[in-house]
Amino acid sequence: MKRTAFFISDGTGITAETLGQSLLAQFENITFTKLTKPYIDTPEKARAMVQQINAAAESDGIRPVIFDTLVNQEIRDILAKSNGFMIDIFSSFLAPLEHEFQSRSSYSVGKSHSISHNANYMQRIEAVNFALDNDDGARTRYYDKADLILIGVSRCGKTPTCLYMAMQFGIRAANYPLTEEDMENLQLTAALKKHKHKLFGLTIDPDRLAAIRNERKPNSRYSSFAQCEFEVREVEKMLRRENINFIDSTHFSVEEISAKILVEMGVERKFK
Amino acid sequence: MKRTAFFISDGTGITAETLGQSLLAQFENITFTKLTKPYIDTPEKARAMVQQINAAAESDGIRPVIFDTLVNQEIRDILAKSNGFMIDIFSSFLAPLEHEFQSRSSYSVGKSHSISHNANYMQRIEAVNFALDNDDGARTRYYDKADLILIGVSRCGKTPTCLYMAMQFGIRAANYPLTEEDMENLQLTAALKKHKHKLFGLTIDPDRLAAIRNERKPNSRYSSFAQCEFEVREVEKMLRRENINFIDSTHFSVEEISAKILVEMGVERKFK
Repeated sequence: MKRTAFFISDGTGITAETLGQSLLAQFENITFTKLTKPYIDTPEKARAMVQQINAAAESDGIRPVIFDTLVNQEIRDILAKSNGFMIDIFSSFLAPLEHEFQSRSSYSVGKSHSISHNANYMQRIEAVNFALDNDDGARTRYYDKADLILIGVSRCGKTPTCLYMAMQFGIRAANYPLTEEDMENLQLTAALKKHKHKLFGLTIDPDRLAAIRNERKPNSRYSSFAQCEFEVREVEKMLRRENINFIDSTHFSVEEISAKILVEMGVERKFK
Repeated sequence: MKRTAFFISDGTGITAETLGQSLLAQFENITFTKLTKPYIDTPEKARAMVQQINAAAESDGIRPVIFDTLVNQEIRDILAKSNGFMIDIFSSFLAPLEHEFQSRSSYSVGKSHSISHNANYMQRIEAVNFALDNDDGARTRYYDKADLILIGVSRCGKTPTCLYMAMQFGIRAANYPLTEEDMENLQLTAALKKHKHKLFGLTIDPDRLAAIRNERKPNSRYSSFAQCEFEVREVEKMLRRENINFIDSTHFSVEEISAKILVEMGVERKFK
């Protein structure tokens, strides 16, 4: 079975999309065509949306499902006339919350919110810069300023994880690739040893690693299965010996890896 | 008024946190202490959560609000006994969706989902690598592979925006800093001209720009208000003359800027 799902918002659409994706993931036997439609903030755009929804209903032969976080009543009224099945996210929860808080919400008075985190802007940019400047072992002298330091073989997912943690949580995450030299020395370099309590390991399935490395340097020793298998085995051995927590990135998304690391390290998010 | 809010999940907590934050933002007159608690996936962790919730209730003098996306019934039952006001996100929406889809959800059968996007993993890593390799005008010869190219003065927010678009949407975004040389030439460099349809401009308030630059190079000509003001004015003039769409990043979050760019450029997300 195939159906179209729309995530519609007068803002970025992040809330509608995040919740909608989570809910649809609970229905594994249905294939959804998912469309995120941010900044639907005028009656004209809303009417164009209705046309698109109705066209999808016609071509699918079944009505689409719509997840919306629209605040403006006029725009919601226009969309309500489409041939879609509408899940109105805000209206479902704001009534009980207004009752609990004994306070009217901006939604009730038709005022839209942006999600801009201006108070956090500098902190966030700073964390992203920290991740970039301290990527791939580029320098180790600022490790005293790091919240954590990810270690693992080249291309096991350290950089995206550090960038994600910087962007989403304002965490200053450095990363250091363990090379053959590190493995032969059978110990951590001085810079890492000094900050051992900040270290967290990432490991990966050798097959997956070889596939990723082949994208960068096809048919090299670097990307051979034998080399990948050797490096992963040696690094895991070192992590165990040094008693450093680590997780296998193979079957997790960057979001999952990041959330798990923060829990295991006991590092608090910087954004509240 | 001050209250504690918990975002509790047996997964990353992203859905509970995203929706919870959006809902709480509608109550501007209340100050919330927000705590995200991912991977609450055992009865032991759930019981520890209950203690933390009850402690917050006691110290605040008012019960906390809890947004949860827990799938396991046993764990939800434990949390339900806390002194918190519980907003059970999944249960609110899955019943109507099950009815609409004529299908039972995994939730109903107590099966948890990870949000891992393994099908998209390679595409995502690739997009992040593209953003890193083509950051800050580092190279221009791969612009034919770019989905879009952000241009603007140094430190106006191009890099975080490109990284966010790569991470969240799999978009290959390059960025090129417009320098005094570009401004004096009064025209776009050949590499940019060739890909003019991919260009999008970012601009920024000169005051904010000076503050950001001062973090990097304090008390330099580069970070002086006069220099920032000159560069911003010249770049905006150039963008208007060349008829390139642009937005002012000053009052928007990276999420908002990214969503706006995709809408204005008509670029589709690569993840569905």
